[in-house]
Amino acid sequence: MNDSNEPLDEALLPRVRVVLSHTTKPGNIGAAARAMRTMGLTRLILVRPSQFPHREATFMAAGAADMLDSVEVCDTLDQALEGTTIAIALSARRRDLSPVALDVREAAAVAVADAAKGGEVAFVFGTEISGLSNDEVLRCQRVARIGTSAQFSSLNLAASVQVVAHEVRYAALGNQVVHETKTPLATHEETERFFVALEASLQRSAFIDRDKSGRVMDRLRRLYGRAMLESQEVNILRGMLNAWDTSMDKRGD
Amino acid sequence: MNDSNEPLDEALLPRVRVVLSHTTKPGNIGAAARAMRTMGLTRLILVRPSQFPHREATFMAAGAADMLDSVEVCDTLDQALEGTTIAIALSARRRDLSPVALDVREAAAVAVADAAKGGEVAFVFGTEISGLSNDEVLRCQRVARIGTSAQFSSLNLAASVQVVAHEVRYAALGNQVVHETKTPLATHEETERFFVALEASLQRSAFIDRDKSGRVMDRLRRLYGRAMLESQEVNILRGMLNAWDTSMDKRGD
Repeated sequence: MNDSNEPLDEALLPRVRVVLSHTTKPGNIGAAARAMRTMGLTRLILVRPSQFPHREATFMAAGAADMLDSVEVCDTLDQALEGTTIAIALSARRRDLSPVALDVREAAAVAVADAAKGGEVAFVFGTEISGLSNDEVLRCQRVARIGTSAQFSSLNLAASVQVVAHEVRYAALGNQVVHETKTPLATHEETERFFVALEASLQRSAFIDRDKSGRVMDRLRRLYGRAMLESQEVNILRGMLNAWDTSMDKRGD
Repeated sequence: MNDSNEPLDEALLPRVRVVLSHTTKPGNIGAAARAMRTMGLTRLILVRPSQFPHREATFMAAGAADMLDSVEVCDTLDQALEGTTIAIALSARRRDLSPVALDVREAAAVAVADAAKGGEVAFVFGTEISGLSNDEVLRCQRVARIGTSAQFSSLNLAASVQVVAHEVRYAALGNQVVHETKTPLATHEETERFFVALEASLQRSAFIDRDKSGRVMDRLRRLYGRAMLESQEVNILRGMLNAWDTSMDKRGD
């Protein structure tokens, strides 16, 4: 994670809400809140949960339990969708009559693109056992599916929320890994001086013939090139060569 | 999900193993097994778990509990990595001395590319509180990071496994949503006959002027074009027009 400075698109995440409809187990509400929070989603709306607030919800939210204080609870899906410009229903089943179905990654892209235009987006999750009703799905403009194994497609509610929240964060912020190494890379000259010393040492040790060292040196260049040597590492390698060279000198005495 | 026929690359998934090192809570082992199973990953290896087998593991695995029968338990990470060509350590922390760090999506791509060449890949997860030791990380060739909120980065173990397994499945199989509608789309002629009837009806109703109907009709073409009308839907729309036209006729009597 890039923890030095948050990218600008973090600001889109509060425009993406999660709606849990008729959740039966309060623990799943807490686990969903935690899953959202790890990915920077903060707005959770519940439609007629069986039990909420509940100690199981608080327990499963763990360090994200404060998020449960701002949860909104509604009587109808229409209330939960107030103000939304796009509502996306999570649904594993194929239905005869359904909005356009998207893969979860496409759905995240649609959501973030709309939020970037100032829209308000909802991802809507149904009850644990049977999912969303047809009536609920048809209140949404899109259906999203998470690809699962045909042999075992039983993603639990919090796991589905986790995958969606991850995809939304990724769509908004992209790759957040900074690839720079902390320590500086070796310069071309440092690396070349190492190769000269390495070749000389390998010839002295008779590992390679003086007249046909090319092939072996090419492979070693490939290896060390792939590693993208740091300056300190070249120093270590040169030190190793020196030690071997010194030992060979002594033996030669 | 495309449940009609599994794509070929499903065959890569058994070449990607999940290694959980020193897991303290047995429930997390079960939840991780379930998370893997939903995404088609089947090989789970444990390095010195605190307690396993355990009823909490079985409970949390839910419908994937049979996967726990084939779990391998080892004493060392080296044993768990036997036969691997690439080992990828999950790590949230930035470390002074670390293998090349990849974003989780890049890591999944690397894993699947190697598995496609016949390689064996491991994703390695550390203990719940402190993650992997430096010694463990340095036995891996890559580090993978899951992007999380700077305010709350506490992804639990099973949630991390879920995100990784989802990314691996997606890298192997891609978008699995079949976008075809079940019902056939309307032909160009059906749609055009509808537009002719619609324009005539809107002129009769005086909603649009006979001489400047272009702008409104352009917007309606855009709307219905975006919807990609099905044949049956055109029939319904024509039926509605007919009903309005008949009502207008009667009123005109």
